[in-house]
Amino acid sequence: MILITNDDGIVAPGIKALVEVAQKFGEIVVVAPDSPQSGQGHAITLNQPLKLRKINLFPGVESYECSGTPVDCVKLAKNVILKDKVIDLCLSGINHGANASINIIYSGTMSAAMEASIEKIDSIGFSLLDFSFDADFSAAKFYVEQIIRSVLENPMKGCKLLNVNIPAGRREDINGIKVCRQGNGTWVEEFQVGTDPRGEKYYWLTGKFVSFEPEESSDNDITALKNKYVTIVPSGHDLTSYNSIKEFKYLETL
Amino acid sequence: MILITNDDGIVAPGIKALVEVAQKFGEIVVVAPDSPQSGQGHAITLNQPLKLRKINLFPGVESYECSGTPVDCVKLAKNVILKDKVIDLCLSGINHGANASINIIYSGTMSAAMEASIEKIDSIGFSLLDFSFDADFSAAKFYVEQIIRSVLENPMKGCKLLNVNIPAGRREDINGIKVCRQGNGTWVEEFQVGTDPRGEKYYWLTGKFVSFEPEESSDNDITALKNKYVTIVPSGHDLTSYNSIKEFKYLETL
Repeated sequence: MILITNDDGIVAPGIKALVEVAQKFGEIVVVAPDSPQSGQGHAITLNQPLKLRKINLFPGVESYECSGTPVDCVKLAKNVILKDKVIDLCLSGINHGANASINIIYSGTMSAAMEASIEKIDSIGFSLLDFSFDADFSAAKFYVEQIIRSVLENPMKGCKLLNVNIPAGRREDINGIKVCRQGNGTWVEEFQVGTDPRGEKYYWLTGKFVSFEPEESSDNDITALKNKYVTIVPSGHDLTSYNSIKEFKYLETL
Repeated sequence: MILITNDDGIVAPGIKALVEVAQKFGEIVVVAPDSPQSGQGHAITLNQPLKLRKINLFPGVESYECSGTPVDCVKLAKNVILKDKVIDLCLSGINHGANASINIIYSGTMSAAMEASIEKIDSIGFSLLDFSFDADFSAAKFYVEQIIRSVLENPMKGCKLLNVNIPAGRREDINGIKVCRQGNGTWVEEFQVGTDPRGEKYYWLTGKFVSFEPEESSDNDITALKNKYVTIVPSGHDLTSYNSIKEFKYLETL
């Protein structure tokens, strides 16, 4: 059984592309947000109930739209919809837009996959470096299919989460796949400031991603994507900065 | 300049306790959500504008409530409110409830501190192991003060984020401080199922935290908290599973 979700919402073309590929590998169930949830990170809905609606969007595929976040979708899939079934693989995406580098933390797509990986389910988040609604997913679908097949043939061991980013463009322009680390970069933000119809000031987040990786580095997803490689970052949820435990041991003497 | 935020909302007693302690160390500014934001993780608000309101809640302290998530609060503080100032320290909390183990990923309190740490600001998230609104923060305040003083005297080096959890109860019942790793545990979830006033089915998240750490382990926050230690986990935002890069190198041959 393959569980499919995303953060762009169940009507996004990216999840349709993912369903079309995943269907080749066996039974799938789709549980995805009923509205766009980009930037929702690992948010869960605690203070209000969730709604779940069975819908007929993908021919022959059991599908549900959910009022919650991407992580809520995975929790509902595992604990309610597929309670008595074994989920062999969780696929999230294909995201409209990159989730490389630090974006893994902000991304609902990657957080949904991470939630499944916390449950020890092999999980892959896929993202295409094209934000547009009518992005061309044909090259992405080729790589998504190869990667799903390989992971089904070689189940993951300790690490249960892959962050896959795919360059925009044609398949013949992609140079191959790099398995690498999360690149070092951040967002430089500004807020668009305006006045709403009632005369109140508002702030609307905008920003530009900045890489801290030197041009010549090749072991990280930022530069590998620039060089037109599909990137795969094996990822986890242990945020401990192990190298720094010693630095802060002095605090034990307080 | 010390920036203070939280995820329980600006009127929560926990942030008041934190303000009272932090005031002793110099100028502070509070930017916190105008409503409870527990479980918001690293969510940011992309699809709608944010409102910011200057309020007079803490005597003599410049304070703002924000309509967004905890991470939004930090972004607005850095890029709008304190644009021309240096933030020496970001403090988040004191959270009503634990943020040990995997909870760092779901917690708005910890995500706010992490957002500041991404901006290379020394950051600390504080949580008390008591969910109640009228929790007793007196023992917590003692440790919070010690830790803030130490970090101001010894600025952080590579690692810019500390996850501090404080046992509930009296100060004399706490055995000291442990600097340790994130404990291994997860949530076993159920959904409360009900019917809303319009006859529609709803699902409401509930669950129980389960530790995977053996009783005798002592190098992690779960067991150290059980043993009545304040825990400090140096944390980061690089999610790469470095040990697994080799395992997945075979994918480069696709």
